[in-house]
Amino acid sequence: MKLATFEVETPVGPVERIGAVAEATESEDASAGEATLVDLTAAYGAALEAEGEPAPADLAHAHVPPEMIAFLERGERAIDDAREALEYAAETDAERGPGGAKLRYEPGEYELLAPLPRPNSLRDFMAIEEHVQNSMDGEIADVWYDLPVYYKGNADSVVAPGTTVQWPDYSQIMDYELEIAAVIGRRGRDIAAEDAKDYIAGYTVFNDFSARDIQGREMEGRLGPAKGKDFANGLGPYFVPSDDIDVLEAPMTARIDGEVWSEGTVDEMYHSFSEIIEHVSQSETLHPGDVIGSGTVGEGCGLELGTWLEDGSTVELEIEGIGTLEHTVVG
Amino acid sequence: MKLATFEVETPVGPVERIGAVAEATESEDASAGEATLVDLTAAYGAALEAEGEPAPADLAHAHVPPEMIAFLERGERAIDDAREALEYAAETDAERGPGGAKLRYEPGEYELLAPLPRPNSLRDFMAIEEHVQNSMDGEIADVWYDLPVYYKGNADSVVAPGTTVQWPDYSQIMDYELEIAAVIGRRGRDIAAEDAKDYIAGYTVFNDFSARDIQGREMEGRLGPAKGKDFANGLGPYFVPSDDIDVLEAPMTARIDGEVWSEGTVDEMYHSFSEIIEHVSQSETLHPGDVIGSGTVGEGCGLELGTWLEDGSTVELEIEGIGTLEHTVVG
Repeated sequence: MKLATFEVETPVGPVERIGAVAEATESEDASAGEATLVDLTAAYGAALEAEGEPAPADLAHAHVPPEMIAFLERGERAIDDAREALEYAAETDAERGPGGAKLRYEPGEYELLAPLPRPNSLRDFMAIEEHVQNSMDGEIADVWYDLPVYYKGNADSVVAPGTTVQWPDYSQIMDYELEIAAVIGRRGRDIAAEDAKDYIAGYTVFNDFSARDIQGREMEGRLGPAKGKDFANGLGPYFVPSDDIDVLEAPMTARIDGEVWSEGTVDEMYHSFSEIIEHVSQSETLHPGDVIGSGTVGEGCGLELGTWLEDGSTVELEIEGIGTLEHTVVG
Repeated sequence: MKLATFEVETPVGPVERIGAVAEATESEDASAGEATLVDLTAAYGAALEAEGEPAPADLAHAHVPPEMIAFLERGERAIDDAREALEYAAETDAERGPGGAKLRYEPGEYELLAPLPRPNSLRDFMAIEEHVQNSMDGEIADVWYDLPVYYKGNADSVVAPGTTVQWPDYSQIMDYELEIAAVIGRRGRDIAAEDAKDYIAGYTVFNDFSARDIQGREMEGRLGPAKGKDFANGLGPYFVPSDDIDVLEAPMTARIDGEVWSEGTVDEMYHSFSEIIEHVSQSETLHPGDVIGSGTVGEGCGLELGTWLEDGSTVELEIEGIGTLEHTVVG
């Protein structure tokens, strides 16, 4: 199942909903925005209505809230309810659910947003040794092996799939980073690594756009990256539940203007997502909607390849089983 | 005017409200939780009701929303409406507003929360040269003079005034940092320094609790502090509108178990709040409820003084015109 957040134009203004790619159109080739989306809240309501439930719309809003973080708050039960809704939509010929809500949106009828348009938080790790080796002038600090180091990104800077990223005026060196992000689906604190997988609702593609010139300069100040990262975070196109993807094996590819620049998997992670969650949740509460970036796969960015994006470059990051996250950068 | 967020027990569970310290009890000596608070939403509604407004409670919720970020979204108009509400409460003998909502809460009738229990974001700078000189082994990177460097904190880790902070198991070195925080009250992007003060709604006291052992280790990984900072952020006790405080002159004091350890002002800031806002807002949107820490005043933490907090230490950070933010740490 591939979950999405999307926006629909209505006479009273844009309305945000959550959906899933309709099974009939679920192919690896379907680019973001080109799939048929099932409105999960509407479809769940339609199923309830068919069963004779007297208040199907209200109940559907509680079971499958049309906002991703509220949806994630329900944990695995929300995922199960979403699967039921998707199945019902595949079986029924009905076009509308309770209150006349449309069950399906065709390409052009919706605008795809990032699955989490505004995550609760964004932490990005650097868990793959080859990337660190390549990008830190070959010198890996001892601490890197002892614990997963990370910075916290700007959760307000998420850019939607398919959009154009305006590069900041203060930077001339444009780079991407090929990453996968785990999305937290359960509140927890002091979580042991062996329990950590229960806290991951699923995964999405993460492009940690990086302005290398300013990033390098500000990191000399020792408080980590900020302006070098915080102008744009690509997440999407879909959010795939943990059970539906073998995250360590999923091939990851970066294509720039159609040419493959990076390939890898996060099987190379020195600190696993479970170890990361154990580390981060010590004396800190994780919340549904928290996003945890893996760090860049080896040779997964221009910095490691000695080449940069150009004005107008199109960056496609694909993870098999999730989809292709595409952006164009303009400088 | 000193604004607060507080919680009231009700038969249907705790309810969060915003208030202001009643003028009669507004003295520098009144510790947090010992003031009479006026419920601003209720008082604004009471004033409307007295004027014959047919829907005073609904209108009061829109003018003075009982949640601080929603309140800040209204910008200066909310501050003006809050002043009106506070004045009305001082003049009236009435105890209750529309719907029977209490106008005033005495000490013991409420629990004081941080003015922003969950800021939209938390950026903390390091803008005072003496602190950097003292804490970075005397070596200040050139970049520090060129631009304001900062890290992003954990907005989910705000601790209420007066509470006990449980120190993380992974740290033995307990420290405080004496800072003032500016609170953003207006959405903006690419803000020029000369316009920046219009974006600051006001100020509060900020204790950037620091676990120095882990902080030092993880900063060797070059992505900045995380576990060393993210377990607790003290904000409060009150939030004071910009017009009501001369922030550069306000004396700041840290007392540990009653003994003065640190004194200073942020007049020493090398990068001003206005310059910080210009820097941060380049290619990033600032939002109401974003918090910007000044950085520690010179000799404003144990690291600079060569001494640490102990198990059971009480830390009081006072800024004249705002109040005293107190926490006890246990290790």
